[in-house]
Amino acid sequence: MTKYVYDFAEGSRDMKDLLGGKGANLSEMTNLGLPVPPGFVITTEACTAYLVNGDVPAELAAEVTQHLDALQAKMGKKLGDADDPLLVSVRSGAKFSMPGMMDTVLNIGLNDASVEGLARQGNERFAWDSYRRLVQMFGKTVLGVDGELFEHALEAAKKAKGTVHDLDLDARDLHGLVDEFKAIVLKATGAEFPQDPREQMELATKAVFDSWNGERARLYRRQERIPSDLGTAVNVCTMVFGNLGMDSGTGVAFTRDPGSGAQGVYGDYLQNAQGEDVVAGIRNTLQLQELEGIDKPAYDELMTIMATLEHHYRDLCDIEFTIERGKLWMLQTRVGKRTAGAAFRIATQLVDEGLISEDEALLRVTGAQLMQLMFPKFGDTSQARKLTKGMGASPGAAVGKAVFTSEVAVQWAARGEDVVLVRRETNPDDLSGMIAARGILTSRGGKTSHAAVVARGMGKTCVCGAEELEIDTAERTITLRDGTVVGEGDLLSIDGTTGEVFAGEVAVTPSPVVQYFEGSLASEDGDDLVQAVHRLIRHADGVRRLKVRTNADTGEDAARARRFGAEGIGLCRTEHMFLGERRKLVETLIISDTESEQQAALAALLPPQRDDFVEILRAMDGQPVTVRLIDPPLHEFLPDLTELTVEIAVAEAKGETPEPVRVRLLEEVRRLHEMNPMLGLRGVRLGLVIPGLFALQVRALAEAAKLLKDDGLDPRPEVMVPLVGAVQELELVREEAERILAEVGVTAPIGTMIELPRAAMTAGQIAEAAEFFSFGTNDLTQTTWGFSRDDVEASFFSRYLDLGIFGVSPFESIDRDGVGRLVRTAVDEGRATRSDLHLGVCGEHGGDPDSVHFFHEAGLDYVSCSPFRVPVARLEAGRASLEATASDTR
Amino acid sequence: MTKYVYDFAEGSRDMKDLLGGKGANLSEMTNLGLPVPPGFVITTEACTAYLVNGDVPAELAAEVTQHLDALQAKMGKKLGDADDPLLVSVRSGAKFSMPGMMDTVLNIGLNDASVEGLARQGNERFAWDSYRRLVQMFGKTVLGVDGELFEHALEAAKKAKGTVHDLDLDARDLHGLVDEFKAIVLKATGAEFPQDPREQMELATKAVFDSWNGERARLYRRQERIPSDLGTAVNVCTMVFGNLGMDSGTGVAFTRDPGSGAQGVYGDYLQNAQGEDVVAGIRNTLQLQELEGIDKPAYDELMTIMATLEHHYRDLCDIEFTIERGKLWMLQTRVGKRTAGAAFRIATQLVDEGLISEDEALLRVTGAQLMQLMFPKFGDTSQARKLTKGMGASPGAAVGKAVFTSEVAVQWAARGEDVVLVRRETNPDDLSGMIAARGILTSRGGKTSHAAVVARGMGKTCVCGAEELEIDTAERTITLRDGTVVGEGDLLSIDGTTGEVFAGEVAVTPSPVVQYFEGSLASEDGDDLVQAVHRLIRHADGVRRLKVRTNADTGEDAARARRFGAEGIGLCRTEHMFLGERRKLVETLIISDTESEQQAALAALLPPQRDDFVEILRAMDGQPVTVRLIDPPLHEFLPDLTELTVEIAVAEAKGETPEPVRVRLLEEVRRLHEMNPMLGLRGVRLGLVIPGLFALQVRALAEAAKLLKDDGLDPRPEVMVPLVGAVQELELVREEAERILAEVGVTAPIGTMIELPRAAMTAGQIAEAAEFFSFGTNDLTQTTWGFSRDDVEASFFSRYLDLGIFGVSPFESIDRDGVGRLVRTAVDEGRATRSDLHLGVCGEHGGDPDSVHFFHEAGLDYVSCSPFRVPVARLEAGRASLEATASDTR
Repeated sequence: MTKYVYDFAEGSRDMKDLLGGKGANLSEMTNLGLPVPPGFVITTEACTAYLVNGDVPAELAAEVTQHLDALQAKMGKKLGDADDPLLVSVRSGAKFSMPGMMDTVLNIGLNDASVEGLARQGNERFAWDSYRRLVQMFGKTVLGVDGELFEHALEAAKKAKGTVHDLDLDARDLHGLVDEFKAIVLKATGAEFPQDPREQMELATKAVFDSWNGERARLYRRQERIPSDLGTAVNVCTMVFGNLGMDSGTGVAFTRDPGSGAQGVYGDYLQNAQGEDVVAGIRNTLQLQELEGIDKPAYDELMTIMATLEHHYRDLCDIEFTIERGKLWMLQTRVGKRTAGAAFRIATQLVDEGLISEDEALLRVTGAQLMQLMFPKFGDTSQARKLTKGMGASPGAAVGKAVFTSEVAVQWAARGEDVVLVRRETNPDDLSGMIAARGILTSRGGKTSHAAVVARGMGKTCVCGAEELEIDTAERTITLRDGTVVGEGDLLSIDGTTGEVFAGEVAVTPSPVVQYFEGSLASEDGDDLVQAVHRLIRHADGVRRLKVRTNADTGEDAARARRFGAEGIGLCRTEHMFLGERRKLVETLIISDTESEQQAALAALLPPQRDDFVEILRAMDGQPVTVRLIDPPLHEFLPDLTELTVEIAVAEAKGETPEPVRVRLLEEVRRLHEMNPMLGLRGVRLGLVIPGLFALQVRALAEAAKLLKDDGLDPRPEVMVPLVGAVQELELVREEAERILAEVGVTAPIGTMIELPRAAMTAGQIAEAAEFFSFGTNDLTQTTWGFSRDDVEASFFSRYLDLGIFGVSPFESIDRDGVGRLVRTAVDEGRATRSDLHLGVCGEHGGDPDSVHFFHEAGLDYVSCSPFRVPVARLEAGRASLEATASDTR
Repeated sequence: MTKYVYDFAEGSRDMKDLLGGKGANLSEMTNLGLPVPPGFVITTEACTAYLVNGDVPAELAAEVTQHLDALQAKMGKKLGDADDPLLVSVRSGAKFSMPGMMDTVLNIGLNDASVEGLARQGNERFAWDSYRRLVQMFGKTVLGVDGELFEHALEAAKKAKGTVHDLDLDARDLHGLVDEFKAIVLKATGAEFPQDPREQMELATKAVFDSWNGERARLYRRQERIPSDLGTAVNVCTMVFGNLGMDSGTGVAFTRDPGSGAQGVYGDYLQNAQGEDVVAGIRNTLQLQELEGIDKPAYDELMTIMATLEHHYRDLCDIEFTIERGKLWMLQTRVGKRTAGAAFRIATQLVDEGLISEDEALLRVTGAQLMQLMFPKFGDTSQARKLTKGMGASPGAAVGKAVFTSEVAVQWAARGEDVVLVRRETNPDDLSGMIAARGILTSRGGKTSHAAVVARGMGKTCVCGAEELEIDTAERTITLRDGTVVGEGDLLSIDGTTGEVFAGEVAVTPSPVVQYFEGSLASEDGDDLVQAVHRLIRHADGVRRLKVRTNADTGEDAARARRFGAEGIGLCRTEHMFLGERRKLVETLIISDTESEQQAALAALLPPQRDDFVEILRAMDGQPVTVRLIDPPLHEFLPDLTELTVEIAVAEAKGETPEPVRVRLLEEVRRLHEMNPMLGLRGVRLGLVIPGLFALQVRALAEAAKLLKDDGLDPRPEVMVPLVGAVQELELVREEAERILAEVGVTAPIGTMIELPRAAMTAGQIAEAAEFFSFGTNDLTQTTWGFSRDDVEASFFSRYLDLGIFGVSPFESIDRDGVGRLVRTAVDEGRATRSDLHLGVCGEHGGDPDSVHFFHEAGLDYVSCSPFRVPVARLEAGRASLEATASDTR
């Protein structure tokens, strides 16, 4: 028979699936012998049974009775007793903490009779206040009565008394309020407030179960990708009271400073108060250390307990506790959240203290945290003039002149000025301005607003929802509440991490972690944070299986990435080799009617491309350099259709004769114009349609490698064909490339991007002609979902994030169910054809922490990412190895 | 041990894999006791072993020797014998007929000695001519000598003799030519022409093997999707000669007329000739019946043999035969090709003759043949003035005024005139003109040219590569070789099936098959073709499992499709409900700033949409009608960005003030402009971003159904959500739709298109919220391959077809390996979630014969296609059922 109720003494921290996080940790503390108020947990299985069948399991009531009887016997008190009643709290507690859910009903067990008994125990006001709280909390969260009704009644009572403080209401006032509250319940629900304590408990339990499927909870789960069939547990716990006088109190504490990672306990204490009062921030709290002077025995006991917990959990713990008339009670503990810097510091501290291994330390930090440490920050802002604080929507520190339109942003940036784009809110029209700006500041919208989503996509600093700013785009001013006006061209400094906005220029401090990675700061010269990062990234390097390459198109980028630890180039785009002065040759290539003109244009492009490749191969000497043959459609190298059409139409309207060469160009632009260039003549298709184009690139690369080899270097070029959908395409390119390589006298593996669903679905065939696959997860995401990043981040991603359709943009973190499944299919079937097939990824996901784990699991050989993300990928690759090992040996 | 050589007596027609088609049928005839010249087959396995290892299997030589010895013993002659030599032919013969491959070397066994012996057998000229033919054929196809060299020498010999006919060369001349030919071989290859007959045979065998990987053969296999590892067999067969005098001859024959399907034998005979002479068409052939007067015994024997073969093969056979001095020899037989009409007629004839069952008859005809019978044709063209004949690139018959530019085509068509677009060749600029025209005529390019590919995609009549026409676009004239000029506006009639081009208007005869399907011609009033179609389509209806629905957007289309046999609507697009007069409301919807204006615009759209649905549901009463909620991006309802930008820029250039409403519109057009609209804000995304849009449509549909239900009809609406990529999207739409359906008081299944790879990969999840899937294979093909039909058919499909990357456009016939695999995945995983999930397809593939078979195999419930394709789909669905049963019981 399924067991639906566990006494705290029967549980443990490993039972989070069944008991939820809170219940599991209360059980753990109980079994450690710590002073936890007695209680029991109704399991998540009872919840899921209730949700599936519409009622609690038949056997639940008997089990609850049994545990309740035991609890009453232990406490020597009874629920609803008219003399000395037992009170309990009923709290939800799911496996994962879910802020969207109903939390707690306190003081269950009070009714019209037992409140008198509680009053007779010594504190009449406390008794009636507790009953008042119960009716209010129960009415609102269990019975669904509009909470405003209670608030209004409470306000009215205070007003009648001529006060604004709850504490000024005496027992008699509160008794009156209880009557009013009960009347509110009767009117709203058509039934009396339930007097039977057991009925109170059962209704509260069902309400907690129902809250699992409340709208906010479902949205939260959709966003956080928490499975919706887990259910929540219910904790029933004896009430203890911190508000029985000055010898009572309540507090929260951490075993180390979660902000800095400094060693030593850290917390707040509030005398004569309950937990909700601390949260409400009505009175100022005391530093935890001050408790020593107030109640040394309780303080000492707390210190001992915290040391025990930290040793037991082998990590920073956060706790909630209450002191009831000098007696310490532990109400909750869990592994505590911490800042990025604290995470690195604490992890290495715990290693040094012998509590955890280096492997464990690595698992305690994340790439996301490392990324935070790599953003530049404002230095000392104490002298800076802070204008307001909005939401930190995309981290970093940006300084620039305020501009109010995209046009001005683009113009000013073009002449070399740093600008911050200021908008009430952004829309797709602002894209060019956002690209041109150092940072973006808006007065409306939250973390899923257009500005926030697009800025994060670009990796650009953004503060949004700074509601105190009145932005007037026509006048080009920001007006603050105090009348201060910031105009176009005035300097602003915005902090995308904290959301702070400063007037003028605030000096930006480079990240010491970046300085360390770049080699300008030796690890031994850095502070303890740099030391911690150094230790953990080195450990990651030692344990990871995935290699980390970089995406780099120039020798300079390649050299920088190498300093960051890149082990080769996973994606060298060759598009830039057709820009600048060479654009003219591309135009010739496109416009020319004769093959000889085309071949001449191609021939002229060879020497400069060879030079480009020499530079890149030299910078990555001895490491693989994967060169992607030209990918974008040709018309990207031509003028814009609309602009050119307007130019010629306007000239004609003015009675001028348009230049013939422009007219000819327009013809070609029109001919090459595509409705959907992303789905058009590009990639390998271009190479097969324009004779000599790919050959030019392969020859330039081969000759560059030959030159370096002849110089005694060790160039390792790889030829990568983009946008292959069918093995036949690759075979044709391969044939030509092999011929050219042989002619020049060098060797290079030839492989392909896997960036189309068809390539993934036919990977077994494609592997016959490919020595390596590189997953182009940007394009693969676009075609798998059928949306183009350029078009949709702006138009509906923010809405989709709000609706919970995405928890995170699939361009940021790989969509495991859809895109990821295609990747796995291609890996499995590619390797089945060719067991030594080399596999990597060169989409932006290569630098995303969660995605790196996926690529490790999928069995790739390397990830490739932007230079700045290389350390992040190294760290996460190490963590992924450890996690995989842990789950293998579990 | 593998057996590599089979005597004809050891094989059978079921051994095509091993013996190739030719060898298998020669074996079959041998075992039927028919007079086949003795010989043997070297298997395809010998070929593949040779290709893999670079040499023939070691044991092959001994096996060949054994079979050769037996052959020589049987014939009483020896290869290369100086007195009475045996001659053999060496012919390739793969499983599938491959016109791109090397075919035949005749007269193997002749050399300088044996030619004398052969001469002494009675015909000196014949002997030397045979040797001349051997050296020439062997030199060219086996030794790779340029064939022109032999041709030139032959021409020179004839010129020296003062003649143009080969027959005027006597034995002495031919002897001289043999010497010359041998000198050519020596010069070109550095070696003497091989005198050893066995060496001749081995070299010829290897040459046949090598030809399997010749360029043309590989291209042909890529295009026809023939696996490249099959290999070819080699047939070694005793030579018989039809050129030994007037009592000899050669012929080809069919057991019925392959053109009309008329009963009775049909063929040609040529006296004193070899097979190649018939093909060369040097002399006029005789009707087969005339042989009776020339050689009655041989004729009678042939008639008996043909009857035997037709009974044995139970189908129309085509044969090749030779009569050597009165003795009949069978050289080849196979099931013969036939026209579409003949296929239907012969299939039903064979049923009536008791040779085959109705099931077999249905398998003998194809949907492609039925389609050919449904195109309109020109009636009597004997009086028409035929200008030229090009390639029939896209079937049908089109009449219209000649126009030479797309602009004129569009203008003239807009005023109601039928036009034929005449271009030297087409390019993407001509698309609008091609759409406007009745037919397209070009003077350049083949069946894979831009014009051909795009016209077939559009289902538009096209003749291309009419090289005799000189087209002058500037002068707007076509000039013929005889000086005739066709100018702009002159009437042309083009036949896309035959490639014929006529001056003036030729009357078009509607297809009687279409008249039958439309009900305007009762089957009993039709000719034997209509009767045959009627019988076979009825039989198909009886055996098929797949239902056939239609894609129809109006009541009229629905009614027509119903007459063609449609069993419901699989795709009712709702886009047209936002066009015409209603476009203004859509503009209001987009431009309005306030929600109330938007809601008013939506409310105004409700009544007309309801009327549309009433009409459609009424036309399909009692059958399902799947309505797809609006799919295309909103900007499709707005003016073109470039045009509007030009309009305003030109107004400004002229110093005019542009209309403010146009300026406002431009702003919105710009805001909604997408780089890749196919990958943008459309489908379900639009429904989730624009509140009330989908609700409007669902309400209009529900209210229409309610009205009809209240009238006592049986409306069966289904709601289909487009472009779903994640189950969450569908859940949100479903929730709202269910609410509206309940409010109105009707029920309707709610389902989704599966048209994105992600939808296919997560079909198991999506099926939780879908009662049906409809595969949108057009869009699925676009995203799976990453190309948009609009953009790429024009720019690279013709090149891809030429390169053999596609055998057929994946938009025409489903790509089984890529798109098809996604479909299968979605079917399997969708049904695993919901066993009664209803499955259909509504892409254009639903009417493609090959694709219909795939959908049957994949387990779909129905296909949906354009009304005109409904009979094709019915026929193919029947055939698919039979094929599946056949392969199940095999």
